[in-house]
This record gives sequence, structure tokens and C-alpha cells, in this order.
Amino acid sequence: MTEPRRTFTAHLRVRFGETDAMGVANNAAYLQYFEIGRIEFLRAAGHSYAEVHNGGIDMVVAEAGIRYLRPLWFDDEFDVACSLTDLGRASFTFTYELKRGGEIVANGFTRHACVERASMRPVRVPEWLAHL
Amino acid sequence: MTEPRRTFTAHLRVRFGETDAMGVANNAAYLQYFEIGRIEFLRAAGHSYAEVHNGGIDMVVAEAGIRYLRPLWFDDEFDVACSLTDLGRASFTFTYELKRGGEIVANGFTRHACVERASMRPVRVPEWLAHL
Amino acid sequence: MTEPRRTFTAHLRVRFGETDAMGVANNAAYLQYFEIGRIEFLRAAGHSYAEVHNGGIDMVVAEAGIRYLRPLWFDDEFDVACSLTDLGRASFTFTYELKRGGEIVANGFTRHACVERASMRPVRVPEWLAHL
Amino acid sequence: MTEPRRTFTAHLRVRFGETDAMGVANNAAYLQYFEIGRIEFLRAAGHSYAEVHNGGIDMVVAEAGIRYLRPLWFDDEFDVACSLTDLGRASFTFTYELKRGGEIVANGFTRHACVERASMRPVRVPEWLAHL
Repeated sequence: MTEPRRTFTAHLRVRFGETDAMGVANNAAYLQYFEIGRIEFLRAAGHSYAEVHNGGIDMVVAEAGIRYLRPLWFDDEFDVACSLTDLGRASFTFTYELKRGGEIVANGFTRHACVERASMRPVRVPEWLAHL
Repeated sequence: MTEPRRTFTAHLRVRFGETDAMGVANNAAYLQYFEIGRIEFLRAAGHSYAEVHNGGIDMVVAEAGIRYLRPLWFDDEFDVACSLTDLGRASFTFTYELKRGGEIVANGFTRHACVERASMRPVRVPEWLAHL
Repeated sequence: MTEPRRTFTAHLRVRFGETDAMGVANNAAYLQYFEIGRIEFLRAAGHSYAEVHNGGIDMVVAEAGIRYLRPLWFDDEFDVACSLTDLGRASFTFTYELKRGGEIVANGFTRHACVERASMRPVRVPEWLAHL
Repeated sequence: MTEPRRTFTAHLRVRFGETDAMGVANNAAYLQYFEIGRIEFLRAAGHSYAEVHNGGIDMVVAEAGIRYLRPLWFDDEFDVACSLTDLGRASFTFTYELKRGGEIVANGFTRHACVERASMRPVRVPEWLAHL
């Protein structure tokens, strides 16, 4: 994995609906935190995900990995730092680090493929993303 | 409200991800139970919701109401009885009753309008629904 | 319904994971928007919901109603105005108004009962809430 | 990774609320499919997760990985095969395979640690699980 070209940090708070009967954020919620992280990353880079999506290209998730290091409790505030770390012809990887205060509570990655929306066939990564 | 023309009952179980830090199914989960109830109702009536959706018509939710009578706990099994109770030219109403064992734990309704998918403009209720 | 004693407005954005195959925020997401609205209302009033919850009292949702007036699309920014409108001995009501720009896109209410967490038995509304 | 000691298969259908604006099951939904898979695995092995949870032990998710091979569309029926594949003193791993018809649409794993619920401190894997 190469050095991140760019990092963006979004600030979130654990919603009550994201907790489960263990009293902590459900493991599936983290993929939503990652999703928000990369959407805000793209927005900060000047490209809203809505624009990408409406342009007929979708960035489908091909693979995801998460390490849960510390539980997140209801109402906890935390940051999602999202970096673009790997960029190929038709796929790219975002990595994520979740921090509460100075403490890393989780990290992970999502690998994405670009597809034409109608056909779901792979297409090249958009130019602007390749030049971030 | 007129007599239900037809009722269909779906059997569900509370998922762990649907619970919240109170240890019970989150209040928002009930709208998903209702949604599953009406989708299974339509399927039982011979019309999959996927078919409706792909046909260019969406049955948007215009209004919803829920009464929470008893909490639903993780892993509880329950039934969602869904009935078509009101049917106008461009809208219709489903009512729902959630039962765990013989006990009613919640009830409610959703009122729907039919819209053309692309424009989101109101259209008439499909013939087949009007004749259920 | 009496005049609202107090109103608080939270600012949100439709998350991608909250949309459904219709391309808009799923009807169940609105109950989560309401939940965030009332949690922020309580925080603004100086009482975090976590504090209430940890104090052994839960404010269970006894009833909810939602009117969906305009669809909310992915990435739409909107405000949730939450007001405490009715206050009885053991229950109270929040009303909500969702606005995108100047336009009301949805409104609704949730009626709550206070219960002792362990037993789920009704208890009186906390003093501080009664004096908001 | 050792040979699975035991496999259990749960049958599911993509819910409308699990889809997103791409028209397919949202990437986060897969962790809920996994969760349902392992809960049904434990039930088939004679141990409900509710029992585990109520017994004061939680099986927290320490790590998760997912490979998304083919999209799942609304209303698609699919199977979640869950296997217990690795078992240590204080942690164990479930692997998952999602199949629609004969086709593998996704696979992945979750690694779990056993913790005492109140303190969130690690404890040994229960005897019965070690002997599955």
C-alpha cells in the first residue's frame, strides 16, 4: 500500500439507532461510517458522490475489511479519517481510521471498482480521481 | 375505514441489528416490518413489489402511524398481519397488526400514493390492486 | 396540542445507506431523523439522552406518526425542528418538522412514556423535563 | 484456516430497506446477513445467541472481512452458509458464503472475542462452543 495521497476527516456521533442490545455501535454501522467518510472525502476533493452517481458511474464496493479495536458507545463523538491509498486502472482503495479523542477505535479499508451504472460493467477510474 | 378485503401474515424474528441500546427492537424497525408485511401481501396476491417497481410505478409512502404496545426483544418471533383497508383513485391504505404469540405488540398503518417513477407524479392505482 | 414550549433544530444530510432502491430516503429513516432531533433537543436543554438512559429511565416510544410530503434525495441537506408540545404526568409528545431550504418535506410526532429501565414499568416524567 | 467443523445455512431475501440508491443491497447489509448466519448457526447447535447474551458473555466482533462478488438485488433470495473455522482460547472465527441459486455472490469472515458483558474484559470461549 502506497502513501495516502490525500486524507479527509469527518466528524460523527454514534446515533441511538446504530447501537444494538450490547449497548454499543453495531458492527455493521462501521461500514456506514466508512461510507460517510469516503463521501465527505470526495466532496472535499470537489466531487460530490451524487454527481458521480448521477453521471452514470457507480463506485461499487468490491471488498471491505474492518478491525474493531474498542467499542463505540451511544453518543460517543469520533472522527473518520479517510485516505485514498491505492489507485489502479479500474479500482482504488480507501483506508479509514476511526478515532475517539486521541484513541484509535477501529480501522479498515474498502476496495472499489468503477462500473457503468446501467450495465454494471467495469469502466476506468474517472480522470479527476486518478489525479487526486 | 372499510373492512379489509384481504389479509396476509408474514412471520418474522427480531434481528440483533434491529435492537438498540434499550435491548429492544428500535422504533424505526417497525416501519421495516410493515414494509416486509406489505411486500409479502402483494406477493401473496400474485404481484411482486419488484415487478411493480420495475414497471415504472412506485407506491410511495405518504403517511404512516405506529402504536407501540409491548416491546419486542431480540430473537422474539412475531407475525405481521397486513390488510388492504382503503382504496381510492390514487391512494390506498395498508393496516398492520404485530402479534407475538396471541398478544398484539404493535399496530399501525401506511397510506400510499402511486407515482410514475421517473417524474414522481401521481398516477392511478393499478387495476389489479383495485380489484384485490 | 398546546404551543411548543421550546424548539430545537438539528441539521442533517441524507446518508447513502439511508436511501433505498427508489433513490430516496427510505420511509423508516424518518423515525431515525426524529430520534436524532429529540436527542439534540434534550442535549440543547442541558440533558443528554445518554444521561437519561444511564440513569435507569428510558423514554420509550408509545406512538409515532409521519407525513411524507416531498421525497428526500441522497445528499440532501435538511433541518429537523423538534418541539416538546404535550406534557402529562407519565407521557409527553415531541413534534417534528423537516425542512429542505424553506420547504417542509415531512412532519410528524412521537409520544413517549417514561419507564423504569429494569422493569419497563411506567414512572413519572423527570422534573427537569416537566419544567422545560 | 482449518476445515470447518460444522456448517449451517440460513435462507434470506433482500429487503427493500436494505437496498440503496444503486438499486442493490447496501454494502453494510452484508454484515447483518453474516450476523443472522452466525445466530442461526448457534441456534442449530442448540445455543441461542439470546442465551449467550443473557448469560453475561458477549461475542464481540473483533474483525470482519467481506468480498462482494456479484450485486444482490431487491427481493433476491439467497443462502448464507456459516461455518466455525478457527477456534482459539479466547477467540474464534466464522466464515460465510452467500449463494444465489448456485452462484457465490459474496463471502467473508468475522473473528470474535468473548468478553464478560459488564466489564468488556476477555474471557475464555464457552466449553460448548469449543466442542462443536
